[in-house]
This record gives sequence, C-alpha cells and structure tokens, in this order.
Amino acid sequence: MSDLPSDSFAARYATEGFGIAHLPYGSFSTSDSDTRLGVRIGEHVVALTDLVSRDSDLFPLVDQPNLDALLTSDRPTWDRLRADLQSVLSSAADAERIASAAHPLAEVALHMPFTVADYVDFYGNEFHAANVGRIFRPEQPPLLPNWKHLPVGYHGRAGTIVASGTDVRRPHGLRPEADGVPSYGPSRRLDIEAEMGFVLGSPVPDGRVPLSEADNHVFGLTLTNDWSARDIQAYEYVPLGPNLGKSFATSISPWITPLAALDAVRVAPPARDTPLADYLDDAAERPWSFDVTFEVVLNGDVVANPPFASTYWTAAQMLAHMTVNGASLRAGDFFAGGTISGPEKNQRGSFLELTWGGEEPVALSDGSSFTFLRDGDEVTLRAEAAAEDGSTIRFGECTGRIVESPTD
Amino acid sequence: MSDLPSDSFAARYATEGFGIAHLPYGSFSTSDSDTRLGVRIGEHVVALTDLVSRDSDLFPLVDQPNLDALLTSDRPTWDRLRADLQSVLSSAADAERIASAAHPLAEVALHMPFTVADYVDFYGNEFHAANVGRIFRPEQPPLLPNWKHLPVGYHGRAGTIVASGTDVRRPHGLRPEADGVPSYGPSRRLDIEAEMGFVLGSPVPDGRVPLSEADNHVFGLTLTNDWSARDIQAYEYVPLGPNLGKSFATSISPWITPLAALDAVRVAPPARDTPLADYLDDAAERPWSFDVTFEVVLNGDVVANPPFASTYWTAAQMLAHMTVNGASLRAGDFFAGGTISGPEKNQRGSFLELTWGGEEPVALSDGSSFTFLRDGDEVTLRAEAAAEDGSTIRFGECTGRIVESPTD
Repeated sequence: MSDLPSDSFAARYATEGFGIAHLPYGSFSTSDSDTRLGVRIGEHVVALTDLVSRDSDLFPLVDQPNLDALLTSDRPTWDRLRADLQSVLSSAADAERIASAAHPLAEVALHMPFTVADYVDFYGNEFHAANVGRIFRPEQPPLLPNWKHLPVGYHGRAGTIVASGTDVRRPHGLRPEADGVPSYGPSRRLDIEAEMGFVLGSPVPDGRVPLSEADNHVFGLTLTNDWSARDIQAYEYVPLGPNLGKSFATSISPWITPLAALDAVRVAPPARDTPLADYLDDAAERPWSFDVTFEVVLNGDVVANPPFASTYWTAAQMLAHMTVNGASLRAGDFFAGGTISGPEKNQRGSFLELTWGGEEPVALSDGSSFTFLRDGDEVTLRAEAAAEDGSTIRFGECTGRIVESPTD
Repeated sequence: MSDLPSDSFAARYATEGFGIAHLPYGSFSTSDSDTRLGVRIGEHVVALTDLVSRDSDLFPLVDQPNLDALLTSDRPTWDRLRADLQSVLSSAADAERIASAAHPLAEVALHMPFTVADYVDFYGNEFHAANVGRIFRPEQPPLLPNWKHLPVGYHGRAGTIVASGTDVRRPHGLRPEADGVPSYGPSRRLDIEAEMGFVLGSPVPDGRVPLSEADNHVFGLTLTNDWSARDIQAYEYVPLGPNLGKSFATSISPWITPLAALDAVRVAPPARDTPLADYLDDAAERPWSFDVTFEVVLNGDVVANPPFASTYWTAAQMLAHMTVNGASLRAGDFFAGGTISGPEKNQRGSFLELTWGGEEPVALSDGSSFTFLRDGDEVTLRAEAAAEDGSTIRFGECTGRIVESPTD
C-alpha cells in the first residue's frame, strides 16, 4: 500500500492501528440513522453502502445492519469486498465524497456486529490450563490426561455475548462454603478471561471443516473477555462444566478484524509434544497461530500482557474439532480460544492466575491491592499486530465495567 | 368441552390424543405452499391463518413460518390465541370452511417449529444421575455434593437441534482406549436420552425469572432425545463438560404441546430432602412436575417407560436457576430437563442405564440382544397425559434413525 495517494481518504484519515491494511467491520448508528454496517479508518467510520456500488452484487450483502448476511457468504466474496474497500478508500477521486459521508467515532453508537449462533469457549492455552490445575487440583498433575489429545471446550451462552462498553452486572449464584452448604449471593470472586474470539461464516450443514479449510470459514477476529464468577463456577461445574459462572456475560470488541489483515503475524503454534489424530495434525498446514500480545488494563493500569501465540491449540484445530462429529457450522457461530497466559507471571490472562487464587494480591498504581473485581472496576483488553505493509493493526478495544447487581 | 357440537371440525376430525383439549402447534409445508404455522387436530393440520381472523391483533403473530413471533409475545396472548382456536374449531358454523382448508398429515412435511436461541440441557432426574454415578464412579457416592443444591446443567449446541424424522449420523470422535491414547473413529457407544423439552418465550432482558413467573415464560413442551456418544463424552468431559459427545444432534418432536393443555397432570415433584436457597424453594409454589410416562421404542419394541414425574428438579426451578445470575431469557430459548429414569429397571431413559454400561444386554423381540445403537436402528419417544376434559393428550412423537457416518 506504499502507493496510497496522499489525498485519498485512507491517507488523510488513517491513524496508527486503523489504516488501509486493517479495515475492521462494525455495526454503528448515529442520532439520525438506523444501525448500519461500517468500516473503520482512523477515528472515523464509513457505512459500507457509501463505499460499495449499488450495481455491485456485493451491495445487498453490505446494505445490512450487521455482518449476518456477509457471514452467509464465502471467502472469495469476503476477499473481493475487502479489495473493493481498499481500492475506493485509496482512491483520490473518491476522497471528498467519502469524507462527506464519514462519521467521527465520537458521534456514533456501536452495536453487536453479528448475531451469535452458537458460542464455544475453548481451553486451548497450556499455561492457563496448567495454572488452573495447580490452583484447583494441587495434588494432581497440572494437565488432565485428555488435554494434549484434543482442544477441550464447552458451549457457552450465545444470548449474553455483548458489545464492548456494556456494563457487566455482578452475578448472583450459589457459592461454596466451608461447611459444604452453599450460600446464595453476589459473586465474591469475579474475574476476567482475556481471549481471542473467532467469528465464523460460510455455513457447512454437515460439519467437518478440515484444517485446510479453516481460512474459508474464519471471517475475522475480535478481542473477547469471558467474565467468570470463580466461586459460582467452582461449586457448579462438576460434572457437566461451567454454566452460571460464565453465562451472565461475555464481552467482545465491536470491531471485527478481517482474517486477511493478519497474514503478517501468522506464526506456528508451540511445538507439539504429543502425537495427534489426523484431523488435528497440523504439521503440514499453514501456520494458524498469531503473534499478537494483549494488554489487560484494570482502571488504567496495565496489569498483564498475555501473548496469544503461546496458545497450544490453534483456531483451525478448534474448528476442525468442533465439527468433526458432523455438527453443522452456521453463519454467526463464534468461538474463543481460551484464556491466554504465558510463562511469566505478568503474562497471565485472568486474575485467578495473576493473584494465584486470590492469595497474592496485585498492587495497583492507586496504592490499593487487588484480587478479584470490585463494583466500579473497569477492564479493557487491547492488542496490536504488525501489518504486511509495515503499519500497525490495533484490535478494537474490549471494555466492561462491573456494576452492582440488583438486590433480591 | 362436553358441549362440543358434534358437527364441529374438532368433533369430526379429532382422534385419541389430538382433540380440542390438546392443539399442539407445528410448522408445516405442502407440495404447493411455503412453510406455515399450524395446529393439529387428529390426523389433520390446519394453518393458523385459516383459523384466526385477519382483523385480529393475533393475525400477524400467526401469519408466520414458525412460532418465533408468537414466542416474543406473552402468556395472556398465548392464552387468548388458544381460546380463539378452541372456539373456532368447536364451532359448527366454521366446520365446512375449516375442513376444506385442513391438510391430512400424510400430505404435509413437518419442520423445526421454532428457531432455537440458547439450549440448556439439565441433569434433573435423581435416578438417572445416581445410575450414571454408579456406572462411571462406582467408588464414590452416586450423587455429587452439589446435586441436591442446584439443578446441574450445561449449554448444548442449538444449531444441531433437529425435528423428529431427521436421520442421525453416527458421530466420529476420540474414544478412550486402555493404553490411555484415544483412537479416532465412529462412536461405539451411541445412546439416547429420553427427556422432556421446554420451549420458552416472553423475553426477560435482565434475567431472573422467579418460580412464580414460570407460567409466563414456558410456552410449551416437546419430547426430546438428546443423542449421546458415551465413548466420546467419557473421554472429553473433564473438566468442562460434554461437548462433541452431544453436539452432533438433539431431536425434538415437531409438535409443541401448549403448557395450558397439561393442567390436569400437574403434580408435585418428589419430596425434597435438602433445604434449598430461596430462589429454588418451591414448597409454596404451584406444582411444576407433570404426570407423563414416556415410551422408548427401539425398532418397534417398547424397551422402557420412563416416568417424567420422577424428575427431582422442576422446569420452574431450572428456569429460575438459569436466569438467577442475570442471564437474559430470549424468545426461542429451550431447555431439556435431563434423562428421565425411575426406580425400576424398565423405567430407565438411556441405554447406558438399561444395559448398565453395556454389561447387561437387553433382549429384543427379533431375538437379538442389544447394548448401544447400531446403524439402521430407529428410536421413537412417545408419551401420553390426561387432559382436563377426560380425554387423552398424546405428545407428538420424536423419532430418529441412526445412519452410518461418512468415511474420512
């Protein structure tokens, strides 16, 4: 993109992280317009209907309130749309027209960018899984026997996935007590999980998406915070897994970064030390991890930098696994790769790990010490990646503030 | 309904189980019409648009391909619609017109009657949970410590809930082996779970549906078979619960029996022997169990008669639990109450239990003995209940046939 005309819209309005090499999609509304699909350049959003010709076969897919219609389409269509957007945004001839149609971000409201079909949350990071094992099951090996043979995951609640900026009400539930009789009340161990989310499309009614097909079904990526009430979760989760400890809220960034924007940061996942079934064996496949480091920001303090590339299982493996039994893939299916942690203490993507089960409080810049989330606390996830043209890609932020839950 | 005119449509066309006191809803199409919402009388289905006046405010809710719009509505609307349908179907004056609009069931195709939002599968039957505990964890007490304190459940895959009659492909996945290294291939322990499903509506964005409000959100009931690959499930389920062992298919009857049709069989659940948190304490509430006995039919043989009233946790408790953390309730949310088993061996609602983990084969009338499902096997769930007018209500059947999965 070195030939970007200096008087094009992209050249004039791009900011670091949101240039022509990024172009994340989102759903926005203004005070005088309904919700529309848009693309972000710098601190502006432009409706896709202002960038795609009415004569184009792409127009019906983008003349929409969100990505749902586009997700029913396919990789060649997604690539063609991105190329068209890059072309028009780079054109000097269109710059004035686009500038007059663009909306400053400060003047728009952002919404959930797609309708979530099914949501699967994986547990794909070895450092996280081993930390959790050490904290909860100190007498056992940190990883359970199945962990290196398949990407462990479970279905979460699609209906409570919310866009960044939505307040998160502290959940009530049954909390474990020393006498074995649970108490009912607000969670005392409210936590985050810093994760990468993957938005899926190009439906496969009979399932079975092999590793080699993952590029055709992963539309884009988004920062994801899978809020977790550790006390509720700990009491309920045997034997059928997490339920109310997770189902109250999962926040995602309203900006979906196209998969195609991340080619420059594709890297191989950690070395595999356990032989895999053929459908999971990615030794000969295109690398499917991403060199993206998160920032976990608590009330303005950066408290952790989880490195996504430390995740053992890749998104391609997760997709192959969740469909290998014949389960259909629908447009709008969504999965997250699991809490991201690295080998260092400041790389842990949950407060459960950062404070080692609440036993090692973290000092904050305001002089307080911290274990689990308090009412009023605000958590923001950020992440950056290198683009192919040498610029930077900034993922859209994922923010949520904890508010008191209503009394009973 | 003793005053039903003998020349009304209902009187002329009702059959045992499908009379004026039942009126289940379904989605149907014919060779020359699109999919429409209908109601069943006997062996006929009538489009709701042929029964509700175009001038009625109910018309837009029923002029639909399925129940989705009606589920966004509320209990008073649902009751008013049912009263209107009972009135017109009982009217002698309308009988000829309705008869000319009715379709014999043999000439229609039935479809999924609603779009599933989120699906939660509970584990609410004590006999089933204890049997599973004895089979899988013989060295431990049969029930886990949390079981009597909350209705244990997990989120299933909404996208693979299918209407009765849809073939079920045997899933592939990782199966446990004696040497600890799983093998990949078709499930060898494919099973059923005979359950009652509950279709929900009247959305509650902030969750928290108290026991006393359950009547306002349970639209109807449907027989549900949560197909389960016991080998895949056993290998994957620690620590996050079932995933691929369940996510390939769940079958439901295409006929949704209105909650209001079941008043005569409302019964108290089994006696509670453990004090409950206030939000689950139903001692002072309307009874929320149902005296409905299932038939599990394998290739024509009735192999079990699970009694739904043996289920420890009620649908009202499940609904209160799944929303007590603030999780929203959406129109089209769906839950199943868990595999139904009773104290007797022939009351067990899964082959895992009927054959005690595969160790005690069941003899079939064709001379074969049976443990888990073979390709070509067909399982049908049936159930009956008494209606208030002394007639019988037959739930719509839930059938599925196992077919070989494609080779890799």
